Amino acid sequence: MTSTSALSVNALSEPLVKQLIDDAQRLRVDIVRTPAGTVIVDAGVNAAGSVEAGLLIARICMGGLGHVTQRIAFDAAPLWPAFIEVHASNPVLACLASQYAGWSLSATKEQTGGKKFFSLGSGPARALACKEPLFDELGYRDRHDRGALVMEVDRLPPQVVIDKVLNDCGLAPANLVIAVTPTQSVAGTVQVVARVVEVALHKTHVLGVDLNEIVDVSGNAPLPPPAPDGVQAMGRTNDAILYGGRVHLTVKSDAVAKKLAAELPSSNARGYGEPFADIFKSFNYDFYQIDAALFAPAEAWVSSLESGVTYHGGTLNKALLDAQWQAR
Amino acid sequence: MTSTSALSVNALSEPLVKQLIDDAQRLRVDIVRTPAGTVIVDAGVNAAGSVEAGLLIARICMGGLGHVTQRIAFDAAPLWPAFIEVHASNPVLACLASQYAGWSLSATKEQTGGKKFFSLGSGPARALACKEPLFDELGYRDRHDRGALVMEVDRLPPQVVIDKVLNDCGLAPANLVIAVTPTQSVAGTVQVVARVVEVALHKTHVLGVDLNEIVDVSGNAPLPPPAPDGVQAMGRTNDAILYGGRVHLTVKSDAVAKKLAAELPSSNARGYGEPFADIFKSFNYDFYQIDAALFAPAEAWVSSLESGVTYHGGTLNKALLDAQWQAR
Amino acid sequence: MTSTSALSVNALSEPLVKQLIDDAQRLRVDIVRTPAGTVIVDAGVNAAGSVEAGLLIARICMGGLGHVTQRIAFDAAPLWPAFIEVHASNPVLACLASQYAGWSLSATKEQTGGKKFFSLGSGPARALACKEPLFDELGYRDRHDRGALVMEVDRLPPQVVIDKVLNDCGLAPANLVIAVTPTQSVAGTVQVVARVVEVALHKTHVLGVDLNEIVDVSGNAPLPPPAPDGVQAMGRTNDAILYGGRVHLTVKSDAVAKKLAAELPSSNARGYGEPFADIFKSFNYDFYQIDAALFAPAEAWVSSLESGVTYHGGTLNKALLDAQWQAR
Repeated sequence: MTSTSALSVNALSEPLVKQLIDDAQRLRVDIVRTPAGTVIVDAGVNAAGSVEAGLLIARICMGGLGHVTQRIAFDAAPLWPAFIEVHASNPVLACLASQYAGWSLSATKEQTGGKKFFSLGSGPARALACKEPLFDELGYRDRHDRGALVMEVDRLPPQVVIDKVLNDCGLAPANLVIAVTPTQSVAGTVQVVARVVEVALHKTHVLGVDLNEIVDVSGNAPLPPPAPDGVQAMGRTNDAILYGGRVHLTVKSDAVAKKLAAELPSSNARGYGEPFADIFKSFNYDFYQIDAALFAPAEAWVSSLESGVTYHGGTLNKALLDAQWQAR
Repeated sequence: MTSTSALSVNALSEPLVKQLIDDAQRLRVDIVRTPAGTVIVDAGVNAAGSVEAGLLIARICMGGLGHVTQRIAFDAAPLWPAFIEVHASNPVLACLASQYAGWSLSATKEQTGGKKFFSLGSGPARALACKEPLFDELGYRDRHDRGALVMEVDRLPPQVVIDKVLNDCGLAPANLVIAVTPTQSVAGTVQVVARVVEVALHKTHVLGVDLNEIVDVSGNAPLPPPAPDGVQAMGRTNDAILYGGRVHLTVKSDAVAKKLAAELPSSNARGYGEPFADIFKSFNYDFYQIDAALFAPAEAWVSSLESGVTYHGGTLNKALLDAQWQAR
Repeated sequence: MTSTSALSVNALSEPLVKQLIDDAQRLRVDIVRTPAGTVIVDAGVNAAGSVEAGLLIARICMGGLGHVTQRIAFDAAPLWPAFIEVHASNPVLACLASQYAGWSLSATKEQTGGKKFFSLGSGPARALACKEPLFDELGYRDRHDRGALVMEVDRLPPQVVIDKVLNDCGLAPANLVIAVTPTQSVAGTVQVVARVVEVALHKTHVLGVDLNEIVDVSGNAPLPPPAPDGVQAMGRTNDAILYGGRVHLTVKSDAVAKKLAAELPSSNARGYGEPFADIFKSFNYDFYQIDAALFAPAEAWVSSLESGVTYHGGTLNKALLDAQWQAR
């Protein structure tokens, strides 16, 4: 990580955050300011949001180090008509130090004065707070006087959570921007599907591969509409990646390339072949009972700089996606 | 429309208009100024134009609310090598209030002092003039001191038509830019094929669907070269959309999604299956005799936010395009 | 060429050169300055480089007149997961006056005080020096006080070569930027594969076609990882174009379109069907023994403005690429 550690994911994403706020109306997001000046970008709670808002939030979430675009398939019988395509320059910083939803942010009923709140924060502000053990492994800490966080929740965060973020990040209230993207919103669906490459990197990490092995990562995954039901919506974005996601990794050593092509695809996991929502239900909605190996793209192409060889594993599962997403 | 009505399609397209003029040489367009200062961008009458000029004019035509790019197919046996891909944020404004060629602009021989002139104006300046009943339905009127119009004609517009546009738009002469793209030019072909999404929205409107239903729209269509013959050139860009166009719409209600997937594709229309130029000829070149339902993309994928279900209708017709466009 | 001759490929690429230098850390390139101030951008000698650096260098190499992006395939069984897509506005200037690697730059052991040096310089600075007979045919000479050159070599150029470039280009030392991209580097692989369209134009020229015939060019080719062995690395980028490259040319006359579709594809050449590295070895590594007709894309679609007809020749050779690039 030494070679990239002077990059600031919060500084790099700042122009994108400015664009999100300046173009709020066009992107159909609402800008809400707390009394102290923290900006909440509502991309799907009270606002309609849009695909484009989701793309921009995904780029912010990658700390300004990712390219995220929408594509329309041109083959005769496509897996799906719309895809999200992701390229990460400095993939470990972009995906793990910034995009990964790893910062647990919660508040009790007493603290909120209403419903209890829970969100896994993602985005560059995580690297200011560094509350997760992952940052020790990454050896990365950002220092910047502005920060942005993404929360996949269906309501605006309570002040107590905002205060915790401000405090942990060491930010003045007016220098924090939080984008809120419900799972059941259009923008929320986009920003989760845009995690196809991050999911691959996270699993690479879980598989015990040295992150210094990772040279370059790209990928894509089909973009479904959100499902109106919460569990189905979460299932759907997971299915997009687990059964429709394709990644291309370039790593240093041949052994790692071979290992990743074999072990990375979701088909290695218990439960593979069932819709994610069904798996989730079968474990009584206990996320942590699900085989962690399932959180992975369907297909992996892994190239090795050592040998120049490319290994290929997994396959796209059109039948499952069609059965879940298309009218019958 | 309430949520987007404060967006100015003319203001949003202004930086693109500036780019078209500043990069004229690179884009191979000619800049002609009338004595009063109105700028005519010749993208194919006396100038050669280019694909890139066509893309930029298409973005202007969408009021700065569209993404229009060229793609090269990578599948082994593609429908066609080149595609135009379109994404519309604020699709109703982008496509109907701006891109739709709905403003009838004509001048008699007496008025021009030469040949009579006819053009259907498209682009953001339409929304300044609001001469079409469509604008009442849209509930949208732009207010801006600069405007841009696109004319698909094979000569520069006569002063009498320019004056009418200036007057109806309430613009100072030097604040109007008119881009001229002949049907038989490269840029003209691009900007018509880039209407694949607009055509879908217009038919949606014709089908009586409430435009507030429309959430998001994307699409693509193959880009042929222009045909040297006028009728064939018009036929060709229509065939690109009618037989090669694919759209993905996201709408609110399930009933509308189901209806659009079934009714939107061009295959529902009388005449489907014949090249457009042949159909046009069979009606003695009377445009208004053609089944209006034919003006539609070949294939529609329509997702519903209400149900989360995606409906699919129509299909790409490679055989017809090959027979028309490829050497035999 | 008259209509484009006032475009300056060095001026147009200047903002891209600035971006390459400003974003050095993110792009993982090293900036080395000679005592006199010439900037050497190391994109793969001592620095790791990146796909994104390669894309930016390719855009610079095309004199700011090309669009070069990375794409991830979405079809079920793609030729390859990653592609480089290229569009050239003003294709003759972009590809032949700038991108073509035609400037022979060498230094003897005596001159370098170490190993002898050889490189074929490419990029816009070629058009300042105009040392190649090609420029007489193009009728183009750039005049600009800054310039950029790309060298596909595995070490930084010696001062004697830099001085020659400065002298021939008439540039002050601090106004020259040289990007160095080894064949065996990630960025080097990208910038060579990005020559798919240039290779087509060069062969068009070799086939004796008047370059004024060329209207528009696009193309793509699969992006493999670099091979660790030098000959294999060179073979690999050639194979990407020869067996995986697809171009779409628009030309003026029908006869030229027909001729190019038939004669342009690499399948017309002696040696076609064997990996490039094997062919190279079979001629004892003497480049000039290889059939020049082999340097061509695998597949060509050529559209004629005269007739509106599109001709198609050649085909992608997935079997050969799989055998070379994939693990067995």
